[in-house]
Amino acid sequence: MQVQHLNQPTETSPYCSQANHPLQGCQQVTSPSPSQSNSVSRMALPETSKYSQGSVLDGVNPDLASERQTASFSVEKLTVWLDGGVEHTRTRRAVVEAIECDPVFSRENQYFQSQNERYEAAVRKAVHLHKKMHEMGWTEDGPEFKYIYRAVSGDIAFLLHRIFKRSILMLGSDQQIAKWIPLATQYQIIGSYAQTELGHGTYLQGLETTAVFDMTTQEFILNTPKISAMKWWPGDMGRSATHTVVFAQLYIHGKCYGVHPFIVQIRSLQDHSLCPGITAGDIGPKMNFEHVDNGYLLLQNVRVPRENMLNKFCEVQPDGNYIRRGSPQINYFTMTTVRISLLADEVLTRLMKACTIAIRYSAVRRQSKLMPGEQEAKILDYQTQQEKLLPPLAAVYAFHSINNYLQELFDRGYREIQRNNFDTLPELHALSSGFKALVTQYCTSAVEICLRACGGHGYSMLSGLPSLYTNILASCIYEGENTILLLQTARFLVKCLKAVSTGQPVPPSVTYLAAVKPGKCPAKNKSDFLCSDIYTEAYQHMAARLIISTAAKLQDLTQSGVKKHDAWNLCTVQLAQAAKAHCHYITVKNFAETVEKLKTEAGIQKIMKHLCDLFALHGIFSNAGVFLHDGYISGPQMDMVTSSYLDLLAVIRKDAVPLVDAFDFTDKTLNSALGSYDGQVYQRLYEWAQKSPTNTQMNPAYKRYLKPLLHNRLSKL
Amino acid sequence: MQVQHLNQPTETSPYCSQANHPLQGCQQVTSPSPSQSNSVSRMALPETSKYSQGSVLDGVNPDLASERQTASFSVEKLTVWLDGGVEHTRTRRAVVEAIECDPVFSRENQYFQSQNERYEAAVRKAVHLHKKMHEMGWTEDGPEFKYIYRAVSGDIAFLLHRIFKRSILMLGSDQQIAKWIPLATQYQIIGSYAQTELGHGTYLQGLETTAVFDMTTQEFILNTPKISAMKWWPGDMGRSATHTVVFAQLYIHGKCYGVHPFIVQIRSLQDHSLCPGITAGDIGPKMNFEHVDNGYLLLQNVRVPRENMLNKFCEVQPDGNYIRRGSPQINYFTMTTVRISLLADEVLTRLMKACTIAIRYSAVRRQSKLMPGEQEAKILDYQTQQEKLLPPLAAVYAFHSINNYLQELFDRGYREIQRNNFDTLPELHALSSGFKALVTQYCTSAVEICLRACGGHGYSMLSGLPSLYTNILASCIYEGENTILLLQTARFLVKCLKAVSTGQPVPPSVTYLAAVKPGKCPAKNKSDFLCSDIYTEAYQHMAARLIISTAAKLQDLTQSGVKKHDAWNLCTVQLAQAAKAHCHYITVKNFAETVEKLKTEAGIQKIMKHLCDLFALHGIFSNAGVFLHDGYISGPQMDMVTSSYLDLLAVIRKDAVPLVDAFDFTDKTLNSALGSYDGQVYQRLYEWAQKSPTNTQMNPAYKRYLKPLLHNRLSKL
Repeated sequence: MQVQHLNQPTETSPYCSQANHPLQGCQQVTSPSPSQSNSVSRMALPETSKYSQGSVLDGVNPDLASERQTASFSVEKLTVWLDGGVEHTRTRRAVVEAIECDPVFSRENQYFQSQNERYEAAVRKAVHLHKKMHEMGWTEDGPEFKYIYRAVSGDIAFLLHRIFKRSILMLGSDQQIAKWIPLATQYQIIGSYAQTELGHGTYLQGLETTAVFDMTTQEFILNTPKISAMKWWPGDMGRSATHTVVFAQLYIHGKCYGVHPFIVQIRSLQDHSLCPGITAGDIGPKMNFEHVDNGYLLLQNVRVPRENMLNKFCEVQPDGNYIRRGSPQINYFTMTTVRISLLADEVLTRLMKACTIAIRYSAVRRQSKLMPGEQEAKILDYQTQQEKLLPPLAAVYAFHSINNYLQELFDRGYREIQRNNFDTLPELHALSSGFKALVTQYCTSAVEICLRACGGHGYSMLSGLPSLYTNILASCIYEGENTILLLQTARFLVKCLKAVSTGQPVPPSVTYLAAVKPGKCPAKNKSDFLCSDIYTEAYQHMAARLIISTAAKLQDLTQSGVKKHDAWNLCTVQLAQAAKAHCHYITVKNFAETVEKLKTEAGIQKIMKHLCDLFALHGIFSNAGVFLHDGYISGPQMDMVTSSYLDLLAVIRKDAVPLVDAFDFTDKTLNSALGSYDGQVYQRLYEWAQKSPTNTQMNPAYKRYLKPLLHNRLSKL
Repeated sequence: MQVQHLNQPTETSPYCSQANHPLQGCQQVTSPSPSQSNSVSRMALPETSKYSQGSVLDGVNPDLASERQTASFSVEKLTVWLDGGVEHTRTRRAVVEAIECDPVFSRENQYFQSQNERYEAAVRKAVHLHKKMHEMGWTEDGPEFKYIYRAVSGDIAFLLHRIFKRSILMLGSDQQIAKWIPLATQYQIIGSYAQTELGHGTYLQGLETTAVFDMTTQEFILNTPKISAMKWWPGDMGRSATHTVVFAQLYIHGKCYGVHPFIVQIRSLQDHSLCPGITAGDIGPKMNFEHVDNGYLLLQNVRVPRENMLNKFCEVQPDGNYIRRGSPQINYFTMTTVRISLLADEVLTRLMKACTIAIRYSAVRRQSKLMPGEQEAKILDYQTQQEKLLPPLAAVYAFHSINNYLQELFDRGYREIQRNNFDTLPELHALSSGFKALVTQYCTSAVEICLRACGGHGYSMLSGLPSLYTNILASCIYEGENTILLLQTARFLVKCLKAVSTGQPVPPSVTYLAAVKPGKCPAKNKSDFLCSDIYTEAYQHMAARLIISTAAKLQDLTQSGVKKHDAWNLCTVQLAQAAKAHCHYITVKNFAETVEKLKTEAGIQKIMKHLCDLFALHGIFSNAGVFLHDGYISGPQMDMVTSSYLDLLAVIRKDAVPLVDAFDFTDKTLNSALGSYDGQVYQRLYEWAQKSPTNTQMNPAYKRYLKPLLHNRLSKL
């Protein structure tokens, strides 16, 4: 890993030359830490308020500045490590800079926008990005691509257009690819992906849309025969898409062949009107994602030519003969890769932002006194506040490591699959399902904790935290409902346990099931619990115990005559718990190994070790029951865990601000009145609030309601 | 308790005669269950869709109807019990009916409204309600009053106007009351309550607004001397109020006398313009409460006459002499009563609604198969879904009981206080703080679980669940931040423990601390855990252990030389946990006692006993560590707990729909496409979505962005 040139100033982007006005343009980045440039943000200029002058221009709030003077490690070094190398850091910053100095991508008024306005802005940005990428020479295969989404920060249209393309590339024949991909790439058509229905989500076999083959015309006739069959939720479909891939039950000569994908045009390319037989629209307001036109789609005898069924793996021949070819398992694999990539791109990024906002705010918010007679204390100095914010911070680093691990595993798996070796698929599927559930659930709770830890101000949209929360919450639902995913992981674990007990080989991540031994945790005092072997073994023991005992219950039930499916249902609460425990164990083990490997990076290893310890001990402290249950950890040992855990809070607290600074979010990316680099939180809340339409527009209630009420019997006050 | 006349038809309200149109008016209520009348709701008429005809008018979804045929108890009997008597039920229904048949109170388009629109609607409703109450003969002291808020369902203005009045009644002299209360009651002025500042919330001593007595003019000069002193968050203040009670540090001759309340006019009664020296506005978008104009307020040398300081308990005489009289403890008591009343009015009602929506939806949503070859199963038949939804349902009944208990305790306390006996205040304060934290935290998590349990459709605003969640989340923050409240309870518990150990008397709710004995749980098999003595004692043991061990840690630290305040801080994570455990124990104990007393109501006692068992065992299952820690419950006993707990899920599942029907919410009150009485969820989602402005307004992006993009190089497709 290269860490040279870290303290050199980032070059100013040539694309920012138009930025003369500090309210909109980029800052010249000349300070050692590029983030610092953002401390003079668009809110920096004195405005109407008498309070505006001075405070922000004076620079960083001293309460935040002091936090940065005592960092026990190099923030820049940690940033580079997170990015995976100095080249990546440089590329990322360049992309962020180019995006942020372009006013089209501004999110300045996002919190004030209606659903219609957010949708319009998202389309504007998507269209502009298409142009911008061309100008900048960025391509979908280039090193910059993966940073664009982070830089734009979510509010952008046509993400489903990408899935549309991906599904054609994956499921289409060479001819189909040759026909559709150039059209989509040049935006001569806009695509969507219509799988989910009003009545069916994760259970795809239950989809009710039909595609009946009409041999006489060589067409498929598509219908959504009942209300629950209506396509519901697909993004980009409510108002934008001209085409979509519809998943429907294929019928030939009255026989059903299961779900297949069909390309269907839904809107005219001339005037965007709906095509014959199509009813489509927007599904209305949601908790977030207001910028996306999630849509509904009804099909009434919509005919598409035979060639519109994506036919790489199966085809309907002109005479109605059905042919399946190749392995469909590769599709299956696509779904798992999407789950893994969303963890880093969607989920973890949001928790990182929430931690940045909440921790910076907690370093400048002073409330009440720790010691009578002293100044009011920073709320970050309260143990209860540390207990809210530092475990999520440690989790960011834990999940960052596990993401890398999973990514590597999937890259390796992909290479195997290309060689037609599908052996790793069950393990990869189990891991992607379990970790999708574990990470989204954990991060969602953690963002909520961050929001609440900021008190009333966290509840203001201007803090940025409500949007982060409502956004990340969706990740628990999409790409597979979490409980169902955990049960898929559990099914894999139960199978592996059976294999192990009969001496058959099992995938690497579950070999520990073969080596379970009864016993007790050997820790003698609280410092023993700072040894990663001690806690990793405790997690391993606990996970194995839950898997083994639940599998035993399952077996007991079936042996006592309960039907197999009923028995499964009666064990699902515990099966889901076991699957979570398995993933938790892998996370701890992987984090400990990652820290171990950091030996060469002495500067950051120490703090990473603390974070790993905190993550592990917080997990034991919060799930004490499963560790105490069989006496592996005793009551007195649990007191040691608690003690070590609470001690660590005070240790990591000292580095809390540098640890979030290392995430290297610009103020514009955070878009938070509480989380900016300079910590001028009250100033920003006030200035941003003044821009709200509730202040810039006339009071709609005064003339109509308040005036008649008050003037009804006007007092002589 | 009177339960006669339960099956008689509710009388049709005379106020509904104008309601000829079924889309807006009231239904004649002639069915045995009044709720059923709402099954033909405003969505009932066939509209544009081909799907509209038939399905809804056909009546209740058979999947929901079947759930009601097997109820093990009388729903109406339970409703009456929840209401506290048949008279209350009748009054409540009459109020709901009168409100719902008045189109001004319609919430039909609420989910589509902007912040400005919601504010305007809330003011319109508040003004209309003033008139309506007069027409209906409803008064603030009357039996109808407490049902109005539930019937209007939240979106209404001028709630802070009530707090304004209450504070004058409580803190003002007789002359002040005589002057201001009639003005406020007749809405010749609109009041607010300005306590919280940008820089200070729960820690009131830290408020920075100043009121300096100017003897020469006999006025107070009010200032918000720095940005953090600005008043921030007060409701009704951003755009509506003409007056407010400002809390400020009183200075006389340079000496500070602490925080006092002052009546300040902020807007002209003639034209509503801001008064001299006043800067005020709206604080902008929030996670919810968009209908409330939470405001900011700056004061620059604003002068008010000496008489404007509320002076029941303290007064500044003309010569600047400061007099304190009476006991200020009564103020303190007001805050605690507000906390208790909000639990029932705000918090529990929202969880009841969320349970109703999620459970009804889970009975009509079919997804995947429990048994191959069978019909897809209702998701409520999955153990994991039961595990999500039934513990929150049981919690509703547990918290309903504890609310009654607290209310009674407070009524008794209030009577004592009127006799100048303040002995119960510490206990009441501790209970109100602890229960506010416990109940708001639990209910918030539970509403989130309900939302997620409905999958993607729960995430749609049209489900009603996102608003319930974002609304209830605020309750964790307002009226005292939960962690701080728990620590106040903990301080009380530590004091009581000290008293107990020296043989001093303690309040009734903590006498158990005196009777703690070591020992083991005597349960021998899983059915023993359905004995309320067994689990109540386990909770008692656990709470006492946590309080005692944390107090011991605190003492150890101070004895080892750690400063008292530092030691306190180092124990706060565990102190908060102990306070929660105490409240949890009281809740279980109280619920068990309530069930015990139901002996005469045999019809509902059985199901209530199941709910009590479920609530208690779910708590042990989810917090296993604290019960296992000292071996009070052993590992094998915990397996019995788990087994009994999971068995109960299947038992209560059979009554799940009747148990939420008993909450007796009308469809209009629920305002949920998923939760209506008739279970026609897909129909409603579709019809409601069509009304969204994203469908009724032109696509704002087409002409500007999509058309140029698509027509750029229009294909010959």
